[in-house]
Amino acid sequence: MSAPTGARRGRRPGTPDTRAAILGSARDLFAAHGFGGTTIRAVATAAGVDASLVHHYFGTKDDLFLAALDIPVDPREVIAPALAGGPDGAGERFLRVFLSVWDDPDLRPGLLAVVRGAMDPSAHRLLSEGFLPVVIEPIGVALGIDDPGHRMPLVASQVIGLILLRYAFEVEPLASMSAERVVATYAPTIQRYLTGPLP
Amino acid sequence: MSAPTGARRGRRPGTPDTRAAILGSARDLFAAHGFGGTTIRAVATAAGVDASLVHHYFGTKDDLFLAALDIPVDPREVIAPALAGGPDGAGERFLRVFLSVWDDPDLRPGLLAVVRGAMDPSAHRLLSEGFLPVVIEPIGVALGIDDPGHRMPLVASQVIGLILLRYAFEVEPLASMSAERVVATYAPTIQRYLTGPLP
Repeated sequence: MSAPTGARRGRRPGTPDTRAAILGSARDLFAAHGFGGTTIRAVATAAGVDASLVHHYFGTKDDLFLAALDIPVDPREVIAPALAGGPDGAGERFLRVFLSVWDDPDLRPGLLAVVRGAMDPSAHRLLSEGFLPVVIEPIGVALGIDDPGHRMPLVASQVIGLILLRYAFEVEPLASMSAERVVATYAPTIQRYLTGPLP
Repeated sequence: MSAPTGARRGRRPGTPDTRAAILGSARDLFAAHGFGGTTIRAVATAAGVDASLVHHYFGTKDDLFLAALDIPVDPREVIAPALAGGPDGAGERFLRVFLSVWDDPDLRPGLLAVVRGAMDPSAHRLLSEGFLPVVIEPIGVALGIDDPGHRMPLVASQVIGLILLRYAFEVEPLASMSAERVVATYAPTIQRYLTGPLP
């Protein structure tokens, strides 16, 4: 007898509706309070489910955050191969992996949608308080570079500009340049931000 | 006897309404057809005025384009001092001028509004077909660097990323960093894009 009323309720495990409700609440709360100001418990309460169910569906808060951003790949998995080998040559390896994802025509529309969403002022806290500590800074930590909290935002500042000109604005000659040439053009910049002398 | 009806007409010189009508038509046409696909004549026709009036109010098509973008400064005038002295050290001079404008609290809100507008997909042609050839590439030409059409988009890719992280997303430590430290951090990158060896 539970089906007719249960179909509109929140505290049920294991349905696509529940998962979507958690994601919706997570997006709202991350946008309103930033990554640091949002707890799994608050997301669970907003979605009308138990916190354990949030963990069951999405894992850690980091995982939930990335799911809420709707990125078509898990950037942590994609980047992992570039982290092997340590800081020497990491700029080139990082760019090569990065371009292989962005140059994939199946992934690009979803990635561009994420970037466009991030440009909305309401999403700025998500980027500054979420994406940087969850995705960008751990790259620097995993590489073992000095002062990743200072250096990785420099890397991000070049990479986001490259994304915008090559993929969003499609500015020539960047838009049509071969991946290898883009890598060779930007690798010295990224490498300097990672390991070079800075003021 | 012309005032009562003339107040709503288009073919009148010298009123704020006329100026606004020209600007509105210019924005619509630049957005729809890009910079290259828009003529002064088409803007005049759309605004219901004579082409000479468009020139009278706004000067050249480049001037009209910059007015339509609603930038609170004329970037060509701002950049001019950085162009004196030629390519050596131009990266540092360019960044110093650039930051002096963006760090001005009176100018920043208007500049940020332009950047946010440029992020809308409907405005991408304005950037790629307008802002680069009208503002960015002439900087390289004035500096006398090799292949400005190739090098200036690289400069733009770093500058736009810096703008986003420092001023729009307010990512630390970039947001609070002194202008001199930002200049020293990014000058080698900009200088290499301007005059360094590239693949």
